[in-house]
Amino acid sequence: MEASSAPDPSAPEARPRRTGYRRLPVQQRREQLIAVALELFASRPPEEVGLDDVAAAAGASRPLVYRYFAGGKQQLYEAALRSAAEELTSRFRVPKEGTPTRQLAAVLDNYFAFVAEHDAGYGALLRGGSVVETARTSAIVDEVRRTALRRTLRHLGVRQAGPRLTLFVRSWISVVEGSSLTWLDEGRQIPPADLRDWLVDEFVAMSVATALHDPQTAQVLAGLLALEEPDGPAAALAERLRSLLAPRRRRPETAGP
Amino acid sequence: MEASSAPDPSAPEARPRRTGYRRLPVQQRREQLIAVALELFASRPPEEVGLDDVAAAAGASRPLVYRYFAGGKQQLYEAALRSAAEELTSRFRVPKEGTPTRQLAAVLDNYFAFVAEHDAGYGALLRGGSVVETARTSAIVDEVRRTALRRTLRHLGVRQAGPRLTLFVRSWISVVEGSSLTWLDEGRQIPPADLRDWLVDEFVAMSVATALHDPQTAQVLAGLLALEEPDGPAAALAERLRSLLAPRRRRPETAGP
Repeated sequence: MEASSAPDPSAPEARPRRTGYRRLPVQQRREQLIAVALELFASRPPEEVGLDDVAAAAGASRPLVYRYFAGGKQQLYEAALRSAAEELTSRFRVPKEGTPTRQLAAVLDNYFAFVAEHDAGYGALLRGGSVVETARTSAIVDEVRRTALRRTLRHLGVRQAGPRLTLFVRSWISVVEGSSLTWLDEGRQIPPADLRDWLVDEFVAMSVATALHDPQTAQVLAGLLALEEPDGPAAALAERLRSLLAPRRRRPETAGP
Repeated sequence: MEASSAPDPSAPEARPRRTGYRRLPVQQRREQLIAVALELFASRPPEEVGLDDVAAAAGASRPLVYRYFAGGKQQLYEAALRSAAEELTSRFRVPKEGTPTRQLAAVLDNYFAFVAEHDAGYGALLRGGSVVETARTSAIVDEVRRTALRRTLRHLGVRQAGPRLTLFVRSWISVVEGSSLTWLDEGRQIPPADLRDWLVDEFVAMSVATALHDPQTAQVLAGLLALEEPDGPAAALAERLRSLLAPRRRRPETAGP
């Protein structure tokens, strides 16, 4: 975005321009700066985005940006992250219609749309080691993960999840997160719809493997499968995996060579 | 660490104390400081461990610690991390005997022993947002993950892994990592042997789900199963797998509600 040469709109003769130094209501200006920052973070890692870039792209002066974010770039970054985190969790909403695996697929579609939109910023944040990463930014990211866990468990109809069911859902969420990073890293080689289908299958597969070790997961899985189309793909995969893994259930102690 | 009463060979008149200010060869002293630091990081987060603590626990003076680590705590932390990373990757060695799932179980046993030993330091590092985390420490951790990926693929007999096989193995590694963190967080509630068996089952389940989307993974999986015990449960496993890998259904596009 280029710097604008529009005159200050507080002067009556000013020509109205969207990127000019126009006066915006406080909340609106704040949101605009955050939106602009998120847009910049999407294409460049946080360490390469300066407050001057944000000011220029927002058509604002550097002092104005500082008026809103006295803590400078770190504060702006955290505000942008908080805003993105809220947006992401709002996308976790599960559609009311459809089988459980269809619903899961719909949420994953929303998730990958978010990842595609935020791209570099999303990657930089989750990969760690970024200069803007602090205990506070990690806490925001962790809160998103916890929300994802809570929502998934609620979707599964679970009130009080035991350690193994929790471990499985957390693990699956980390697979979703990891695969979205890989997807970005590798230039979006795998079509997102394929990735989504793979992740749904992984959910089923991982839950079947966990069900072999945990009665609560077995119960949840049975409840879910009852809601699937009886001759649909999820039921078929679960059935096959169950028979595949069942005999291996009790593994003897590993013996050294 | 408790003081030992072994005599110090360098100073015959000195009162024999293992943690005393005794003179050690350069490399040995360096290794001792790193070992002491790792021990401290295991029970306290890095931000709570100071150079004074390391000096005291090593029976050395603060200036001596600085002589070895002029960059202070950050440098010592990075050296300790590098040392731990080397130790961990050395534990990835796969035993020559045993079926593939037994071998995987043995590597996981080594891994959980490492996690148990390094405890808090391991957790602080992988959870991110630590004050000692930098692009350099992240790079060390990433290198461990890459080594785990390479070793696993080699163990699977794969020379050139396609994107889906790579994604599956990476995902499984992130499940191992995530579950080890959960294990520590929750006071080691789940016995490590259970966790190990669960992770082996997850490996099989995840590979089966991936095989449905990817011929290379299907081939690798078939090859692995052929190495399982011929008249054990693996025979049935291989047989069932053949039917499982029969022509794949296509999941219809998700329809909105």
